[in-house]
Amino acid sequence: MNKRIAVFASGRGSNLSAIIEAVKNKKIRADLSLLVSDNPQAGAIEKAKAAGVRVALVERKDFGSKEDFEKKIIEHLEENKIDLIVLAGFMRMFSPALVERFKFMIINIHPALLPSFKGSHAIKDAFDYGAKVTGVTVHFVDELMDHGPIILQEAVAVAETDTPETLEEKIHKVEHRLYPEAIELFVEGRLKVEGRKVSIR
Amino acid sequence: MNKRIAVFASGRGSNLSAIIEAVKNKKIRADLSLLVSDNPQAGAIEKAKAAGVRVALVERKDFGSKEDFEKKIIEHLEENKIDLIVLAGFMRMFSPALVERFKFMIINIHPALLPSFKGSHAIKDAFDYGAKVTGVTVHFVDELMDHGPIILQEAVAVAETDTPETLEEKIHKVEHRLYPEAIELFVEGRLKVEGRKVSIR
Repeated sequence: MNKRIAVFASGRGSNLSAIIEAVKNKKIRADLSLLVSDNPQAGAIEKAKAAGVRVALVERKDFGSKEDFEKKIIEHLEENKIDLIVLAGFMRMFSPALVERFKFMIINIHPALLPSFKGSHAIKDAFDYGAKVTGVTVHFVDELMDHGPIILQEAVAVAETDTPETLEEKIHKVEHRLYPEAIELFVEGRLKVEGRKVSIR
Repeated sequence: MNKRIAVFASGRGSNLSAIIEAVKNKKIRADLSLLVSDNPQAGAIEKAKAAGVRVALVERKDFGSKEDFEKKIIEHLEENKIDLIVLAGFMRMFSPALVERFKFMIINIHPALLPSFKGSHAIKDAFDYGAKVTGVTVHFVDELMDHGPIILQEAVAVAETDTPETLEEKIHKVEHRLYPEAIELFVEGRLKVEGRKVSIR
């Protein structure tokens, strides 16, 4: 039986689009079963609906505590028998309890070569730092921000003619190729984690 | 007239060897005028002597203060009319005063893609972190460790079969190509620094 994926997105969902496309083209051999969003304005919601993906909107403001908010998320994940949680521009940190509950089942993509340029302005930060090489990282999520074991990384050269905008385009292009690749490796059961090392079988 | 280079090394001097070779082959069109070492056991000293490069051994223990130690170094640099200071495994931080005195005249090579993996165990740290991409950085030295504006960076992939030793070999190979390239860009006057951005004219 196919593995079942939930994508989490707070924004426009450009990685979601790449994943929808990859599932359609059988580059990811799994079911895209659920989109979870915390933002009713997220472009990702329309994209999911257009692709026939079930949407769960879970807004933080509707819950008294982070714990209750996450309880609702976990309900959705369990109801939908999710095997893999794919963060695609989800702008919230999970609690250590949720991470522990779904250990090595949550992956994230970061638009830099971690551990460089953590945080939510990675592309601009790399540009302003004057980096000549930056890139993309897909990693398992642990309880620290942008920190878990690295599944795939790919370098992106910063050209002298690049602006933050052209660099962003280049990086997104790599993301949209690398994330489906990492998801398929997970789905095929080919990732083995030992400490911080992820090997591909 | 040729620009005059001083290499600083505390260790075996494998980058020094690459620079000697590049000067010999006119890949660096400058004079290698001086080796400064703080360590009488440094292999770099023999390599410099064998290549006919003048050696200044300046040991920290022979001076009451860091300031006096650096005064002696500055004397050597001025006597030899040095235009470029190339750090090649020099295991001491310069004082802000010395850095200011030779502003944008000191360059360093670091065996990682800065700002990742600063410090003196960069290759091992990248390996232990489970990085899939690391690399080499040549940068101007400022008053902070492994921090100044970046001249060149090149990515090095970490293979599943790599050990810290094989990774070190790969990185040194890139260093020995990249450092002479950066030195020649400096010598040709092609580097322009604006804030943290180094452009190549």
